[in-house]
Amino acid sequence: MNIKKAVITIAGKGQRTLPLQTLIDRDGTEKSVLQILIEETLHAGIEEVGLVIRPGDQAALLEVAGSHSGRLHFIEQPEPLGYGQAILSAKPFVGEDAFLHLVGDHIYVSRSDISCAQHLVKVAEKEQCAVSAVQATRESLLPYFGVVGGNRIKGSQELYSVETILEKPTPTKAEQQVMIPGLRTGHYLCFFGMHVLTSTIMPILEELVKQETAVSLSEALNTLAQKEKVLALEKNDWRYDLGAKYGLMTAQMALALNGNDRDLVLTQMVELLANREIGA
Amino acid sequence: MNIKKAVITIAGKGQRTLPLQTLIDRDGTEKSVLQILIEETLHAGIEEVGLVIRPGDQAALLEVAGSHSGRLHFIEQPEPLGYGQAILSAKPFVGEDAFLHLVGDHIYVSRSDISCAQHLVKVAEKEQCAVSAVQATRESLLPYFGVVGGNRIKGSQELYSVETILEKPTPTKAEQQVMIPGLRTGHYLCFFGMHVLTSTIMPILEELVKQETAVSLSEALNTLAQKEKVLALEKNDWRYDLGAKYGLMTAQMALALNGNDRDLVLTQMVELLANREIGA
Repeated sequence: MNIKKAVITIAGKGQRTLPLQTLIDRDGTEKSVLQILIEETLHAGIEEVGLVIRPGDQAALLEVAGSHSGRLHFIEQPEPLGYGQAILSAKPFVGEDAFLHLVGDHIYVSRSDISCAQHLVKVAEKEQCAVSAVQATRESLLPYFGVVGGNRIKGSQELYSVETILEKPTPTKAEQQVMIPGLRTGHYLCFFGMHVLTSTIMPILEELVKQETAVSLSEALNTLAQKEKVLALEKNDWRYDLGAKYGLMTAQMALALNGNDRDLVLTQMVELLANREIGA
Repeated sequence: MNIKKAVITIAGKGQRTLPLQTLIDRDGTEKSVLQILIEETLHAGIEEVGLVIRPGDQAALLEVAGSHSGRLHFIEQPEPLGYGQAILSAKPFVGEDAFLHLVGDHIYVSRSDISCAQHLVKVAEKEQCAVSAVQATRESLLPYFGVVGGNRIKGSQELYSVETILEKPTPTKAEQQVMIPGLRTGHYLCFFGMHVLTSTIMPILEELVKQETAVSLSEALNTLAQKEKVLALEKNDWRYDLGAKYGLMTAQMALALNGNDRDLVLTQMVELLANREIGA
């Protein structure tokens, strides 16, 4: 398994304009959110990026793609039929290949030198299977996430075999079906917004889309895990939801505080907190 | 003098995409920078807003103008010939009327209930003349600003009669020509990025543009001050240059810390500074 394609979904409600926003990356240079996401995939060895978009959004995205526009494939999702259907739209682009998948409204800040996507792709290529990045998450946040149940792989600190995946389970259902032995009490492994998927996900999505509207990725991945090996990779990196209130600001602070401009931005924050004018 | 028109310049290099960015305003609602600027003028009683833009930028701006698009007049500056020429482009729009002028790459956060533009327009209507908002600024920042020389109006805490205006003067030149008696040592009155201008500025700009390239507003205002009464209004509000590095983030923090979401954002900032993940 050699992962050279990525699919980023940015057709969702409230997601469309986020990739157009400007942030200063950890290296101190100004980039669009789209550029930051594309670069996350390129660092992981990706060569072609499929963007699932709403019809009409291509021109604006191309304008902010920077030097990466040559690697982009625009995939129009004709109608907003949900997340599962968005990924399914990329079927002709991915063909028979396994692919990296990122959501377009989050950015990822690694605690180490290796980026989140790079880590995930490396594991998927080594293990030759689908891998979902997950994060130990408090029970109170279950209503926001897909949740993974399974068992820690013997001898590994970060890998789990996936048996069940539930979309936004109730605490009771989570306790019964996706509690992971050995995880901190009251914590579950929730999706981090980044996956390596095999092309087997596409016929599964196709079937689900026929049966219901608004198919979640969790549902399809749950079926995939019954058919083939699926792993979860526990990350303790940071992930920022740009669509949350003050999400862009929080992401910008996180990038800056973990990057080259840490001192500059810390000073600005402290000055502002002291309610003094900046630069005057 | 009844001020019902505003001119916002957003054709400058590095300025064009700033009004398209999204911020959360003090009231806690998400707006484009353009919307925030337009609302600043509307609060001041403005009815029509002329936007000086680069050709081709109209569609993107209209899309983020929110409910205010009916009040907008798009004025194309065919070539990037500088700030003075940009204002001159608005001559047919302003006609014989005095008008409020804002730069499109700054936002303004008032310390009081009255907005910066509202205050400025009120003073201009009362005094029946052009008024520039200014701020006492350290000498070290002279290279960034237009600087006003003159005298404090007797009996006023905030109004100055303007005699001389210099664009980015050297410290020596500033000391000789625009030092204001009674101001804190080493401080000068620098432009705040907001003015009420009379239509007399247009023929002055026209003359200057014939003679030189890249005419500054300072130069034209200096000539205006020789012809008619011009005042400066000292503001101690905050102004944020969105085009500066981390300008958007700083502006967002300032809006939030001075608005409805102060506690929420303070908590987020402190959590982030403690290097803990937000929301998990």
